[in-house]
Amino acid sequence: MSSRQILDPLFSTGQMAEVFSDRLRIQRMLDFEAALARAIVRAGIAPAKVSEAIQAGCLVEQYSLEVLGSEAPLAGNLAIPLVKALTTFVAKKDPKAAGFVHWGATSQDVIDTGLVLQLREALDLFGADLARLADTLAAMAKKHASVAMAGRTWLQQAPPVTLGLKIAGWLDAIERHRARLRELRPRVVVLQFGGAVGTLAALGEHGPKVARALAEELHLELPVIPWHAHRDRLAEVAAALGLLTGTLGKIARDISLLMQTEVGEVFEPGAPGRGGSSTMPHKRNPVGSASILAAAIRVPALVSVMLAAMVEEHERGLGGWQAEWATLPEICLLAHGGLARAAEIAGGLEADTTRMAANLKISHGMILAESVVFALAERVGRLEALGIVEGACREAAAKNRDLAAVLAEDSRVSQVLSREELAARLDPNRYLGAASEWIEGVLSARKESSK
Amino acid sequence: MSSRQILDPLFSTGQMAEVFSDRLRIQRMLDFEAALARAIVRAGIAPAKVSEAIQAGCLVEQYSLEVLGSEAPLAGNLAIPLVKALTTFVAKKDPKAAGFVHWGATSQDVIDTGLVLQLREALDLFGADLARLADTLAAMAKKHASVAMAGRTWLQQAPPVTLGLKIAGWLDAIERHRARLRELRPRVVVLQFGGAVGTLAALGEHGPKVARALAEELHLELPVIPWHAHRDRLAEVAAALGLLTGTLGKIARDISLLMQTEVGEVFEPGAPGRGGSSTMPHKRNPVGSASILAAAIRVPALVSVMLAAMVEEHERGLGGWQAEWATLPEICLLAHGGLARAAEIAGGLEADTTRMAANLKISHGMILAESVVFALAERVGRLEALGIVEGACREAAAKNRDLAAVLAEDSRVSQVLSREELAARLDPNRYLGAASEWIEGVLSARKESSK
Amino acid sequence: MSSRQILDPLFSTGQMAEVFSDRLRIQRMLDFEAALARAIVRAGIAPAKVSEAIQAGCLVEQYSLEVLGSEAPLAGNLAIPLVKALTTFVAKKDPKAAGFVHWGATSQDVIDTGLVLQLREALDLFGADLARLADTLAAMAKKHASVAMAGRTWLQQAPPVTLGLKIAGWLDAIERHRARLRELRPRVVVLQFGGAVGTLAALGEHGPKVARALAEELHLELPVIPWHAHRDRLAEVAAALGLLTGTLGKIARDISLLMQTEVGEVFEPGAPGRGGSSTMPHKRNPVGSASILAAAIRVPALVSVMLAAMVEEHERGLGGWQAEWATLPEICLLAHGGLARAAEIAGGLEADTTRMAANLKISHGMILAESVVFALAERVGRLEALGIVEGACREAAAKNRDLAAVLAEDSRVSQVLSREELAARLDPNRYLGAASEWIEGVLSARKESSK
Amino acid sequence: MSSRQILDPLFSTGQMAEVFSDRLRIQRMLDFEAALARAIVRAGIAPAKVSEAIQAGCLVEQYSLEVLGSEAPLAGNLAIPLVKALTTFVAKKDPKAAGFVHWGATSQDVIDTGLVLQLREALDLFGADLARLADTLAAMAKKHASVAMAGRTWLQQAPPVTLGLKIAGWLDAIERHRARLRELRPRVVVLQFGGAVGTLAALGEHGPKVARALAEELHLELPVIPWHAHRDRLAEVAAALGLLTGTLGKIARDISLLMQTEVGEVFEPGAPGRGGSSTMPHKRNPVGSASILAAAIRVPALVSVMLAAMVEEHERGLGGWQAEWATLPEICLLAHGGLARAAEIAGGLEADTTRMAANLKISHGMILAESVVFALAERVGRLEALGIVEGACREAAAKNRDLAAVLAEDSRVSQVLSREELAARLDPNRYLGAASEWIEGVLSARKESSK
Repeated sequence: MSSRQILDPLFSTGQMAEVFSDRLRIQRMLDFEAALARAIVRAGIAPAKVSEAIQAGCLVEQYSLEVLGSEAPLAGNLAIPLVKALTTFVAKKDPKAAGFVHWGATSQDVIDTGLVLQLREALDLFGADLARLADTLAAMAKKHASVAMAGRTWLQQAPPVTLGLKIAGWLDAIERHRARLRELRPRVVVLQFGGAVGTLAALGEHGPKVARALAEELHLELPVIPWHAHRDRLAEVAAALGLLTGTLGKIARDISLLMQTEVGEVFEPGAPGRGGSSTMPHKRNPVGSASILAAAIRVPALVSVMLAAMVEEHERGLGGWQAEWATLPEICLLAHGGLARAAEIAGGLEADTTRMAANLKISHGMILAESVVFALAERVGRLEALGIVEGACREAAAKNRDLAAVLAEDSRVSQVLSREELAARLDPNRYLGAASEWIEGVLSARKESSK
Repeated sequence: MSSRQILDPLFSTGQMAEVFSDRLRIQRMLDFEAALARAIVRAGIAPAKVSEAIQAGCLVEQYSLEVLGSEAPLAGNLAIPLVKALTTFVAKKDPKAAGFVHWGATSQDVIDTGLVLQLREALDLFGADLARLADTLAAMAKKHASVAMAGRTWLQQAPPVTLGLKIAGWLDAIERHRARLRELRPRVVVLQFGGAVGTLAALGEHGPKVARALAEELHLELPVIPWHAHRDRLAEVAAALGLLTGTLGKIARDISLLMQTEVGEVFEPGAPGRGGSSTMPHKRNPVGSASILAAAIRVPALVSVMLAAMVEEHERGLGGWQAEWATLPEICLLAHGGLARAAEIAGGLEADTTRMAANLKISHGMILAESVVFALAERVGRLEALGIVEGACREAAAKNRDLAAVLAEDSRVSQVLSREELAARLDPNRYLGAASEWIEGVLSARKESSK
Repeated sequence: MSSRQILDPLFSTGQMAEVFSDRLRIQRMLDFEAALARAIVRAGIAPAKVSEAIQAGCLVEQYSLEVLGSEAPLAGNLAIPLVKALTTFVAKKDPKAAGFVHWGATSQDVIDTGLVLQLREALDLFGADLARLADTLAAMAKKHASVAMAGRTWLQQAPPVTLGLKIAGWLDAIERHRARLRELRPRVVVLQFGGAVGTLAALGEHGPKVARALAEELHLELPVIPWHAHRDRLAEVAAALGLLTGTLGKIARDISLLMQTEVGEVFEPGAPGRGGSSTMPHKRNPVGSASILAAAIRVPALVSVMLAAMVEEHERGLGGWQAEWATLPEICLLAHGGLARAAEIAGGLEADTTRMAANLKISHGMILAESVVFALAERVGRLEALGIVEGACREAAAKNRDLAAVLAEDSRVSQVLSREELAARLDPNRYLGAASEWIEGVLSARKESSK
Repeated sequence: MSSRQILDPLFSTGQMAEVFSDRLRIQRMLDFEAALARAIVRAGIAPAKVSEAIQAGCLVEQYSLEVLGSEAPLAGNLAIPLVKALTTFVAKKDPKAAGFVHWGATSQDVIDTGLVLQLREALDLFGADLARLADTLAAMAKKHASVAMAGRTWLQQAPPVTLGLKIAGWLDAIERHRARLRELRPRVVVLQFGGAVGTLAALGEHGPKVARALAEELHLELPVIPWHAHRDRLAEVAAALGLLTGTLGKIARDISLLMQTEVGEVFEPGAPGRGGSSTMPHKRNPVGSASILAAAIRVPALVSVMLAAMVEEHERGLGGWQAEWATLPEICLLAHGGLARAAEIAGGLEADTTRMAANLKISHGMILAESVVFALAERVGRLEALGIVEGACREAAAKNRDLAAVLAEDSRVSQVLSREELAARLDPNRYLGAASEWIEGVLSARKESSK
């Protein structure tokens, strides 16, 4: 078989691909076995030299991944051939110690806890990269706080926003994701150790003591009860990353729409060859956004797999547990790939403020119609104001004229609004409402929460 | 058109169906409009009588749901026809006040905040019913703490657990769901109010002040920035309920498997006619579990819709926002239906301990094989112990004999384990490991967290 | 409880909502019972008057939907209370006939076959409306065959296409969906009749004969074996409608992107009030496209429910079967709503060819760069040609000049292409390749297949 | 980065992993480029030696997959770096020929057609393995046609079926999947060749001619119009494999339930080490079924990705297209892995008919209650019969007596049914209805369709 990782650089990151590589999957399982050996020594179950002998066999390089993989189907999981291989390895040097390999544990203990160790590394990567993205967005929101651009609803131009406001919205969501990941971490970074069915019966009265020692060895929290048959801890990671990917997708959607030839307000950072076309020399494609959007299409479905897989049978799932093995890593890979791309795009985002200003004018002032409605409303009531402005909009559109000019000719308008007042009302830079206040609010809240 | 709610009682609850009924959907939108009227009065934008006039029109009974629905396609949402109808209603009595209807707000403000008001009620229902379920499970876990039953992994009998341990596992997961819902609540029960594009520009400098007053009127938190284009707050509710439904599905899977004719250890509560068959008079079907399992199949996919819908365009989504409207309510309905059924089943669960004891014996002691392995391992090493016991198991299985008898004949065993010791090792009630300690841990943790 | 159908007009059609209404769900189940009564009479099992007596009770209006719904949870499905109510109804007039109600059938027979009867009506609606949409698209493809517009890849302008070509692509996909629905129909429009477990044992030796008569009565095909535990027939309908909805979503995505303020090439049909905004008088929102896009977000997940639900237990599913009940109707509703909206939009689509022509120019000729590359390639080789044109594009972009002007100044170009030749190469109307041939191909293929 | 394929042997097959390996992904793209070179030579665009020079560069071994992968992010896809590498390779020997590499094609042409070539191989594998599975099931259905076993609905014992009938149901579904794959093949195994936007404009008037030649070279059908922006052809493969996986999941669910310790009627084939436990020597886990069930949980969600990805933008998708790249191969891998496991299990399935017979008795005859109801119904009417039998069932259950004995004591029964008649009615082997007729029907239909 030939590998399937040629698409990794497009949709993931080298760091996350490493965390969830076959190599580290096995190494983390071996880390569990090594720690278990130390724990049973600490508990007085095995003599000290047992842990040394076992630890000596706990390096992934000592095993053939291909052989382990090929033996998995017969066993039904990777732990059985790995424990067998480890036992054989240890037995060569210390047959007695070999008898203590995997003592009291079951396959699911080593597979689940190995995964938890991988997830801890993954969460660290997410934490650091989210912090970095948030810092970048905060700086950008500040920088572009007063840059007016067309708001757009239903893909139609609407009253103006600022680029800073748009970015502050992104940032606000990213901060919520950081909070979520902080909140779930103590539920996830926990030991799974229950033996065959969760009672640790094989350890006799030593069970809880060994469990405590094992958790300490791995720097994991010890839960009040083994959780092998309850997968909400893992599915919650999936769900939180699904939420994050949704926000990343929203950012990518915004950027790629703004980058359209006909809009041209914002661009992914340029680089030689970046986003080029195999046939069209003039093109600069939003390749980063496309990667993120692909993740945003794929991850929701993968989250649903993790949720569906929760319906496990009794003390060990039949299908559900196995469905998680490739799915949760894939979610981490895609979400982190999206995050890295978003950080890269945000870090080098080019804004064409001239084009923004130009686009604010293409509707002949009509996106400011609301502004005039409310100005008139104070004098003539909102419903009549609405009628006046709607009529003017229709005429402006029909005759391709500026709304200002049409309105100025309407005596119902000119009686209450001077030409200057009207112009002011139709100036996008004066119709930004609480935009800067909201931005300030988002920036302050971050400072608050990071205290 | 004829309604589609005949399946509601099967998959939901009357309470939740009420919260997400058409009637309350519209009423909560009207609640927003009424509160907005009070807020603009408080902000000095409109005279006091305006709010009275508008509030008088804010009763759902004053409108035809059918007409509102039929006008929605042209408008693209329900808010436009509703605001129009409300304005007309108010105008009849007070044309001036009518001009202040929906002042400064946009359709999404009223639709999103209306939904938040519904979600607050939904979260209250979930909170109360989860507490009730947790109490029931806690009592059951205590009651059945020492009732041994076969553990089952891969749907095969494994070493024993206790019914209390199984239930404590369910309970532990339920407590995590309660924590999640508590954590997300402050992110969800918040006002959405941003006007056309999120700047509240139509309100001039009054925007934030009106927003604050409006939040107060509705007893909602005021977010630092409008969140109309960022749907993670709503998708998080969906995800949390997806996690909950997964756990409910796991419980239902366990119960329905235990209720199989060939297992018969645990039963949904009986009632005249409950779970009967149209053709088979003898049957008692796990109808409650089936309902929950159906929810556990449907909800994960619905969660993925909420995640996919997050990829919204600019200041208002085109398709994503609209995809949420029926989906999030459906998730609430199904999750609450599942919760109610789980509570009902748990409350009246019948346990056949005689059958449990009998089932513990059908493997001729083989599910205790591990126990003997570890007993022998202390003397002869684990690998040799494993070899001895595996051989005995094979022979016991082939000859349909008791494992105890086969083992007793093996001198390698009899030399180190007396017949009494062997019997003790093969007694399920003595091979329960930390079961009672784990149960105690779960029960203590609840008390801790409820302090 | 209050109904949930206020959103129906936005996302579905009255016709399909009727087909899947509670009323017709029950009526089709009663149709099964009536036909079964006739079938057992034909088979000589019951006297002729039995079928008359039973048929007299097979009108939905004779029953309270609310009562049936409220009794379903205890029974686990709708069939049990319905059969009970029907039996009671018949017993009042003819107690003997009442004993023959539902003779030999099981709940799943009546529920599944009732659903098949609904699906037959649904498929008829889809067939007719797809034919209509295809005709409209064919006429449009022809009409706009030579209307050049910018091609767009990665949301960037690319070489030109024609509006007719774009529409022909839509049409070609729609024709494939029609073929799929034709192909699956014989697998779906079939009787389900197997009794308690699929053997029809209650009917003794009469089983197959009654089954045949029943299929004839309902004008359904008789399958070689009951299919109650195999749901691929139903899931296939879901999948096919999922594919259709994907295409509708693609069409809606295209239209809504073309309708952007900054693009403005194509518009949903206008109507007073259509797509208006509650705050912005100037707007014309793509409300039809938004509805379709919402369906395209929701339906894929619902299809996954139908696929997941296929994993049924033995002779009747526990959760899977029940998960289908609301899901398949929802898919039909959303897909038909999308289809109806697409037909409506296509039927009144407004094309602004002036804007198309203008947009073809905004890249200063760069979207025709490929054309020049290939013209030069014939003389200087493709790689050098690419180098020349890329350089010219960069310069044109940097200096905001026309590509034609920049190229004309390059002696490597002018030596091989005259000014006229260059102009011709940069004329979008002369760079449409096989567009008209493809359109012709699509139109011919339809005629072919409809022969 | 380290590879992620250690789980492949558990969930897929070596053959399918090869088809969708990085190596073959690139090779099939190179096959496209080689065929295109031949096609432009045939069309007279390039001299004959061009195709030789280009073909010489079309071996995957000539390129570094790692380099190609690392260059993809900048380009946004794999085709750009591959075409560049191929061009460089060819240029070394024949700079002129290098200019003709990828002539007139775009990245999507080579990526999509490369995928189609992979899918053709995948469909061949599915076709062959489905035929094999169907043959196995047919033989088994015949062999076990009269082996009675308990039917089970809602996981409760119900009237008897036969093992052959159960298998015939599986087979019938498998045959439908074969028909579906046959039907979709001509829609999938088609060329994609449209150039930058689908017009083949770069080829001038030669476009269709080159397209035809290219299709011939690759032995693909030529569609009437390029389909790059319409993904229903690919999504249909996904959907059909989703349907197949659902059926495989249903089979695996049945087998794993039958294999429960408490049921023990049917077993996955045994093999040394197969399904062993790391801690429990006695166990024989349904490892094959678990793999299939995992696929049945994962594939539905992956199908939803393919459906969601159909909503592409204009002439090339932004996110949707990219989302397909890993998803469709994953579906093929999982579905084929499931199919291979199902074939393996079916081929060696062990049936314990003694246990089946024993299980038929554990309900004390109650699963035959229906039989008595219908026997009595002919004399006393069905409603009274139902009442009599329900009463007897309740008593039998309460007193743990045989239903036959209880019924025999009821004079309403003994008056119309002799003890012998009653015994016959309660003999599972005499209450199998049309089971053998259905089996025969399925087997005949296969022969019919294979004619």
